[in-house]
Amino acid sequence: MQYTFAERVTHMDSSAIRELLKVAEQPQIISFAGGLPAAELFPLEEIKESYYQVLGAKDPSVLQYGATEGYLPLRQEIAAQMRVRGIVTEAENILLTNGSQQGLDLLAKLFINPGDVVLLQNPSYLGAIQSFQSYQANFMTIPTNDAGIDENALEVLIKQNQPKIIYLTPTYQNPTGSTFTTDERKAVLRIARDYRVPIIEDDPYSELCYDGQAAPPIRSFSTDDEVIYLGTFSKTLAPGIRLGWIVGGKSLIAKLVIAKQGADLHTGTLLQRATHYYLTHFSPTEHIETIRHAYQCRRDLMLSELKKAFSNKALWTEPTGGMFIWLTLPEGYDTLKLLPKALATNVAYVPGANFYVNKKSHNSMRLNFSNPSPSQIQQGIKLLAKIL
Amino acid sequence: MQYTFAERVTHMDSSAIRELLKVAEQPQIISFAGGLPAAELFPLEEIKESYYQVLGAKDPSVLQYGATEGYLPLRQEIAAQMRVRGIVTEAENILLTNGSQQGLDLLAKLFINPGDVVLLQNPSYLGAIQSFQSYQANFMTIPTNDAGIDENALEVLIKQNQPKIIYLTPTYQNPTGSTFTTDERKAVLRIARDYRVPIIEDDPYSELCYDGQAAPPIRSFSTDDEVIYLGTFSKTLAPGIRLGWIVGGKSLIAKLVIAKQGADLHTGTLLQRATHYYLTHFSPTEHIETIRHAYQCRRDLMLSELKKAFSNKALWTEPTGGMFIWLTLPEGYDTLKLLPKALATNVAYVPGANFYVNKKSHNSMRLNFSNPSPSQIQQGIKLLAKIL
Repeated sequence: MQYTFAERVTHMDSSAIRELLKVAEQPQIISFAGGLPAAELFPLEEIKESYYQVLGAKDPSVLQYGATEGYLPLRQEIAAQMRVRGIVTEAENILLTNGSQQGLDLLAKLFINPGDVVLLQNPSYLGAIQSFQSYQANFMTIPTNDAGIDENALEVLIKQNQPKIIYLTPTYQNPTGSTFTTDERKAVLRIARDYRVPIIEDDPYSELCYDGQAAPPIRSFSTDDEVIYLGTFSKTLAPGIRLGWIVGGKSLIAKLVIAKQGADLHTGTLLQRATHYYLTHFSPTEHIETIRHAYQCRRDLMLSELKKAFSNKALWTEPTGGMFIWLTLPEGYDTLKLLPKALATNVAYVPGANFYVNKKSHNSMRLNFSNPSPSQIQQGIKLLAKIL
Repeated sequence: MQYTFAERVTHMDSSAIRELLKVAEQPQIISFAGGLPAAELFPLEEIKESYYQVLGAKDPSVLQYGATEGYLPLRQEIAAQMRVRGIVTEAENILLTNGSQQGLDLLAKLFINPGDVVLLQNPSYLGAIQSFQSYQANFMTIPTNDAGIDENALEVLIKQNQPKIIYLTPTYQNPTGSTFTTDERKAVLRIARDYRVPIIEDDPYSELCYDGQAAPPIRSFSTDDEVIYLGTFSKTLAPGIRLGWIVGGKSLIAKLVIAKQGADLHTGTLLQRATHYYLTHFSPTEHIETIRHAYQCRRDLMLSELKKAFSNKALWTEPTGGMFIWLTLPEGYDTLKLLPKALATNVAYVPGANFYVNKKSHNSMRLNFSNPSPSQIQQGIKLLAKIL
């Protein structure tokens, strides 16, 4: 049967690159393409014990329908964690979601009319672009100059185009690994407040800091709910459980609850209870310390391998945290066209153009260093250099 | 901060009744209001063992990101179950979702432009109404006469209004417990096919059959993907895990995968693996037999208590399966206005008007018999009779 879909479906393109990158899942391929944590570091035993205890407590409500907002003790625990990061908040300000991707989708659903402008970094997180696009947003990108964000140009742009939302990953961004300075955070917040444009602060990576601490979240400087904050356990605990959260004002959370109710009623009860058990009976901070150390070593290794193999042939970011390095080849290269050649030599990356809205970059690529092993990083960067 | 939401938010009302019914969660209240399975019958031990085995197998991929479509062996297992129900299908025709509520939301997102007409039963499942409403659908309802569906009127209605989607819960419907006959199923399918309107067949209850077998799903008569089928583990295993599925043609599944990717990337990996373990290592059919027997007893008890307490004072459905009885008081009663009185005497129900689109019914209510215990059913129906 031929279906007649809604207008928005024409804005929901299947990513051709995703098909191409399915090849990257084959075991012989060294993949820098994914955004995956290192699976061998997951706290399997502790999570097993958490599920075992929660399911063994003879309380069948762990398998029953639950409140859309989420399990109250878990929201309280997350609120406490948020306060440690400088965000003044309570359980009532928190909605639990299926990863922060669902947070993005619910916010896009609440805010975006077809044609509304979303202001974002360029490049930006692919999943955010997809969510906003599926509600038919238009995009404008944050102007930068050699000193970083061009505040004056930003202010003019916002005044002229009145965006509906500003979407930012200010800390160890996906895909570039770049980070806003504290001054930049405060400047964006001031402008957003002056022109009454809410900021969505997507913050999956700030605990993966390798050189000192991450700058405080923008939300920590906010006094009037201008900043809607998205957090997730995907990078610090495990992505396969699908658990994230939104921090917002109570009236916004009330709207989000209605949206989430229609989207999937609530996040899994058992998942929430087991995660709460894990957070309160084990040492999440120690676990984060472990992955932080491992990823720092992998970042350092990738940077030194890049220096050996690419020294004068390319530029790359030197991220102080997160999971990605952004490599830029000289003008004229097309990383999308190079990808089949890379895959043929058993190495994979994501061509940079995928992360851009409006203007495309053809000579950049995103390299992930958290998932590949140290020996894969060594071998993979050498392979990559050879195809150029 | 005052936010400017999207136009669709004005169609996403918070249900006042939901606030009122929060009272029904207090322990002293006998609640016929929820749509909850009996928690004391959940296979807690088997699910505990499933998580324990899956997490104990030292395979960290159980906590890693997974494919948006879902875990292949689980999709294969569900496809096999579908074939037992007469639906010819393969893993490639199945997308896993966070309960069938997410299936509804993804389908509404794919199909509904603002103003598009959805044709549905009146009354219908509240969650479906909410999902379609949030994409700004208009509603038309299926005409009936004393013999059930009025086929001629239905055909005229479809011809004149060309609905975008037909939404049906043909088997043991929520809220009325009513069921389409096999002839009605075939008639609706023929009309849908003739006028090229896809049917969404929502089927959470068909395994909860108490008098013989449920009629075959409409999808089992379909030959050209006119019928999109929604299944769920919420009623047969446990709702708190949040796991459902969509059966559709491969091209539709491909579109749904893109929508799901934007919505939440994928359904939890661990959840899918543990559920697959449960389905293949324990006896789901035996478990369903257990709950079927228990719910049948509760239905019989509620029907006999209604007869004792209400005999000439009301009418009610006698469902052959599912979880609900629909009680209709004489004209002039208003079940919404009666609710505070009911709550004050410690008994709760959902006023029927909540399940209606367009035309409201004021003298009906939905009564759930799967969650309350037999003694609660006896006591609660007596209390209910007293307030009238």
